[in-house]
Amino acid sequence: MNNIFTIPATGYAMLSKDSKFTPIEFTRHSVGDNDILIEILYSGICHSDIHTAKDEWGGTSYPCIPGHEIAGQVIAVGKNVTKFKIGDYAGVGCMVNSCGECEACKASQEQFCQQGKTVYTYNCPDFFHGGKITFGGYSSNIVVSQNFAIKVRANAPLDKVAPLLCAGITTYSPLKFSKIKAGDKVGVAGFGGLGMMALKYAVKMGAQVSVFARNENKKADALALGATSFYTNTDKNIVNERFDLIISTIPTSYDVIAYIDLLKFGGELAIVGLPPYKEAPSVSIIDLVHKAGKKIYGSLIGGIKETQEMLDFSLENEIYPETILITPNQIDEAYEKLTNGSGQFRYVIDMKASN
Amino acid sequence: MNNIFTIPATGYAMLSKDSKFTPIEFTRHSVGDNDILIEILYSGICHSDIHTAKDEWGGTSYPCIPGHEIAGQVIAVGKNVTKFKIGDYAGVGCMVNSCGECEACKASQEQFCQQGKTVYTYNCPDFFHGGKITFGGYSSNIVVSQNFAIKVRANAPLDKVAPLLCAGITTYSPLKFSKIKAGDKVGVAGFGGLGMMALKYAVKMGAQVSVFARNENKKADALALGATSFYTNTDKNIVNERFDLIISTIPTSYDVIAYIDLLKFGGELAIVGLPPYKEAPSVSIIDLVHKAGKKIYGSLIGGIKETQEMLDFSLENEIYPETILITPNQIDEAYEKLTNGSGQFRYVIDMKASN
Repeated sequence: MNNIFTIPATGYAMLSKDSKFTPIEFTRHSVGDNDILIEILYSGICHSDIHTAKDEWGGTSYPCIPGHEIAGQVIAVGKNVTKFKIGDYAGVGCMVNSCGECEACKASQEQFCQQGKTVYTYNCPDFFHGGKITFGGYSSNIVVSQNFAIKVRANAPLDKVAPLLCAGITTYSPLKFSKIKAGDKVGVAGFGGLGMMALKYAVKMGAQVSVFARNENKKADALALGATSFYTNTDKNIVNERFDLIISTIPTSYDVIAYIDLLKFGGELAIVGLPPYKEAPSVSIIDLVHKAGKKIYGSLIGGIKETQEMLDFSLENEIYPETILITPNQIDEAYEKLTNGSGQFRYVIDMKASN
Repeated sequence: MNNIFTIPATGYAMLSKDSKFTPIEFTRHSVGDNDILIEILYSGICHSDIHTAKDEWGGTSYPCIPGHEIAGQVIAVGKNVTKFKIGDYAGVGCMVNSCGECEACKASQEQFCQQGKTVYTYNCPDFFHGGKITFGGYSSNIVVSQNFAIKVRANAPLDKVAPLLCAGITTYSPLKFSKIKAGDKVGVAGFGGLGMMALKYAVKMGAQVSVFARNENKKADALALGATSFYTNTDKNIVNERFDLIISTIPTSYDVIAYIDLLKFGGELAIVGLPPYKEAPSVSIIDLVHKAGKKIYGSLIGGIKETQEMLDFSLENEIYPETILITPNQIDEAYEKLTNGSGQFRYVIDMKASN
């Protein structure tokens, strides 16, 4: 059997849960007929990367190269590829493949592949290439099916595009799922990077948006971005507004029912923030009955079709995250800062920067 | 100040949480301009009655006269009453009053009165009559605002109508809230009295209905009533169906996520069963994110307008609970039987039966 791992690559890997990021050489699988090879120019750092790199969710394989916010340029295409040509810009988010045949995949909800064959961009067996564990975007290149690559127009700011592939779709998707339209009332709980994106999208969709944060530090930012109210406390006695949708991006333990309380009858609470498992709050079904007629659901990134829609919407409306560019040798430092309390910005690794 | 409690009544009361039901005499408030006086003919026994009578939810005032499934005949009307005339049949469910002015009340969701002035039919301060604790339907008569009385047509089977006022609306309401229509797939989890009503309504609305029960005892009943599948196990490996709505009537601890798993993307789990507080299951927000795009909500009876709609729908389609008529001196025995495992039938007290 031929070795299919023929594309040389370099990446920045954790070698164990306590190591520093270390440059390693490895190989990507060859460019299949439907695949494209992307030279990675920018790779965003997501908090999930940290949880995985440090094995905080369990199940991390080492060496581990994180990164699922990838933007770059196409440098090779398989013979059946029609969606991209060499020189095009392309993005890759949290997934690189799935079965393509089940109902979920056909509905472009590849993250819910019913055959369980969603291949995540890193730390996941690649079911279509011998089960080898995937390596992410903190690297020089990536090979991906054209179906899982997002088209990025030529003049797009690639460093801003990269983080949209996770932070953007994560917050855009529940706004669409809950059918938010102009005039609706939206709450954004937690005002870090995800919260800021949720605010920007909801404002652009014409919603009236309130922000809930731990303290007043970010109040001016939120109001400048179009929030109509800013609360530092969910005490229902002081918040008289009631919402069609509240998106919770809170990454720690919190009182979920306090937010359910703030929904209109028929309103929805969308959970996108993932606290560490041991801190994650639960909701008793008794409380749900007492707060009857208010729905809660979780939202997990979004399908490829919706990711493309999100990116086009973002570029058209110039909705971008706040980013700070770093060089690859600053990853450890960025992780340390993020662990000690994330800001509203996204660290993005300039993969071409010299260390 | 005049004594407004001028209407003599007799009722069957618990005198303490360990007592037997004991006949007592008391007075109802007088018939106000918008009130009607109903001679109670039938009063259903709901499991909530037992929890309250035995102070299992805390906060029970004694003497306690339960009963919120009331059917009877109008014997007096206030001068502004237009909805009823003497001799009409009328029903009373879980509520007898509310503020009438807030957004929820105006939308006929009186159970969510934003002023907190929903007056429940028993064991609740009557905010509009000096705060006196309400007495329920295990009694000879009741005085209620015409706005909270349900119209019942002349030839209706009153003994069957009574339990609809709670068991009927509790299961009808989530089917409407989740907009179930012909061809939708509905699951009914738990197949006691509520489950049977949910099955009957969903079948009549044209849904394809599956029943989940603890064992096969009730399989034949479920299929005879129109269920297309019957499962005794929610193991997702054996249940390949996916549902638009699952109504959980389960009154004990259970694996909520197993049911969320059985929803279609965008499907909803409606909780109507209320386990004892200490047994009630909780759902982690982590699990909700892992089962993304599936919604969970609680449902609590229904408003007066919808209760009327439910009753009209039930009578028109002859959808009734299975009932067993008892005399007032059999209440203790019925409670004992219900505590040891409820059936699919509803005990209904024939208030006119001699002991």
